[in-house]
Amino acid sequence: MMRACRLEAVERTPVWLMRQAGRYLPEYREIRGRVGFMELCKTPHLAAEVMLATVARLGVDAAIIFSDLLPILEPMGMDLEFAAGEGPVIHNPIRTAADVQRLRELVSLDPLSYVFDVVRATRAGLDPGLPLIGFAGAPFTLAGYCIEGGTSKAWLHTKSLMYREPAAWHDLMDRLARAASAYLVAQIDAGAQIVQLFDSWAGCLSPDDYRRFVLPHSRTAMAAAAARAPVIHFATGNPSLLPLLAEAGGTVIGIDWRIALADAWRMVGHDRAVQGNLDPALLLADRDTVRRHTLAVLAQAEGRPGHIFNLGHGVHPQTPVENVLELIATVKGC
Amino acid sequence: MMRACRLEAVERTPVWLMRQAGRYLPEYREIRGRVGFMELCKTPHLAAEVMLATVARLGVDAAIIFSDLLPILEPMGMDLEFAAGEGPVIHNPIRTAADVQRLRELVSLDPLSYVFDVVRATRAGLDPGLPLIGFAGAPFTLAGYCIEGGTSKAWLHTKSLMYREPAAWHDLMDRLARAASAYLVAQIDAGAQIVQLFDSWAGCLSPDDYRRFVLPHSRTAMAAAAARAPVIHFATGNPSLLPLLAEAGGTVIGIDWRIALADAWRMVGHDRAVQGNLDPALLLADRDTVRRHTLAVLAQAEGRPGHIFNLGHGVHPQTPVENVLELIATVKGC
Repeated sequence: MMRACRLEAVERTPVWLMRQAGRYLPEYREIRGRVGFMELCKTPHLAAEVMLATVARLGVDAAIIFSDLLPILEPMGMDLEFAAGEGPVIHNPIRTAADVQRLRELVSLDPLSYVFDVVRATRAGLDPGLPLIGFAGAPFTLAGYCIEGGTSKAWLHTKSLMYREPAAWHDLMDRLARAASAYLVAQIDAGAQIVQLFDSWAGCLSPDDYRRFVLPHSRTAMAAAAARAPVIHFATGNPSLLPLLAEAGGTVIGIDWRIALADAWRMVGHDRAVQGNLDPALLLADRDTVRRHTLAVLAQAEGRPGHIFNLGHGVHPQTPVENVLELIATVKGC
Repeated sequence: MMRACRLEAVERTPVWLMRQAGRYLPEYREIRGRVGFMELCKTPHLAAEVMLATVARLGVDAAIIFSDLLPILEPMGMDLEFAAGEGPVIHNPIRTAADVQRLRELVSLDPLSYVFDVVRATRAGLDPGLPLIGFAGAPFTLAGYCIEGGTSKAWLHTKSLMYREPAAWHDLMDRLARAASAYLVAQIDAGAQIVQLFDSWAGCLSPDDYRRFVLPHSRTAMAAAAARAPVIHFATGNPSLLPLLAEAGGTVIGIDWRIALADAWRMVGHDRAVQGNLDPALLLADRDTVRRHTLAVLAQAEGRPGHIFNLGHGVHPQTPVENVLELIATVKGC
């Protein structure tokens, strides 16, 4: 996996899956029946155990810390709740330029020490040959949550603030970018070998708006970490942003399934590693279909070094475990 | 507008807006306070009045019939309801191969005669110099609604059926494609000068899946109409599908805001007209921003004939009317 990040030759394509420790696993559902989501994130030995059991069960080539994009917002003053079955809710969303001032600078990382404890506990239990991935939400995705107060279809509050109050927007994005940067570096300090920046909602933007309102801040979020470890820069929902994602930074560019991997890699440039890009919905098909499409993604990479196999987004809760195992066996068999 | 569809020289870029008669207009909200959405669609003189008043107020270069994508599904056996503030609900969704057989062939268009009455009534009241646009949902978008029973984030039921039951999938898509084809032709017969095929949800697909599971059926849906009138083929959510949309057909290809218009036009080919592509969220900004971004879209077309100005998707209900007027004045001033 580390060699693939550096575009070096590998014996076979490394593989891990976004949301590999998730609700599709009966063991995970069993634990979640006893422990709430945020409680699990904040209990390092349990969070580590969940990921280590998953890595052992699946035989993937990397662990990622069990956590979420949003905990970083709590010490910044956002009133965050994970309501059962509802997704995250922020009870005090940012809607105006004045509200932006309410978002506190992340002066100390102490309130997030449980995350670094998760890094340490997971690292301690993990095969020394496997990398541990830390992660953070990208500034745009964090801003979207802060402004909408949760997820959204059209991100209209977010775009309204962006278009109507550009100075407040850049102030907000700068605060989030510096916080994400410090957070990623602290995860590397605690023992992560790789970090991933998730820009889950950037795909709702035009290339022009991404360049003007997002790119400089994503660059800020990644720069310090990139001097220390490989950074995977992932967004979903708009293949035409790929050259701009590469311009913002990232040792590896994460690709979703909306574009053929070979075309995506050409847009990103072959001097950069890529991660992706099977549609996670394909894991709801039969095993033979899973195998064929997995092979098709591998064929798109044409044996070129620098491909990390992954889905184009997280594993869906409805996914049969045997299909995930089939995917991993297929990648490892090549 | 007709000349722009045919790539002929025009004095200025024609403009109309998807969902131009919608909740952002106080007059429209006033009528909807008295009449439910489906009742409005099924009352031809009211549906025509709503659109004619909108065209007069905005000064746009085309009318589109006031209707919806889903009425076509009612005579095919789907139990459709527009619940207040909820969006459409289908109470008997298709989930299995056996369910597909339940979808009735659209042998007669008589149950949809109210739509053709809307075409006739709107055409009768419209300036003879302005074209009237008819429309239908594309097979994939109709299938998505039939299978999910409404809108969806990840379209997992839809993709599951597509991957697991390809024969049933193609049967379903073929029924929907033939129904959409007959429906578009009947709208032309009733007096529409242009028709638009809306593939609102196709952007959730990879190019490979679009090619295999969707393209032939969208081609079927458009072919007969295209022999009679210009067809606008519109999808949203994935710029990398654009060459495939063009391959499926369409005199004009509709472009959303996720890609720069100049890049989109290059992908589609300059032998084809394009429609688009301002982000409708930009209409929530101040008027000066609206004007600047409208000019930027026009500049991307470089004065090339064959550009129809539109948004990348429908007008949002929160949009200030003065911003819509600013957009139209800007296009007309060029």
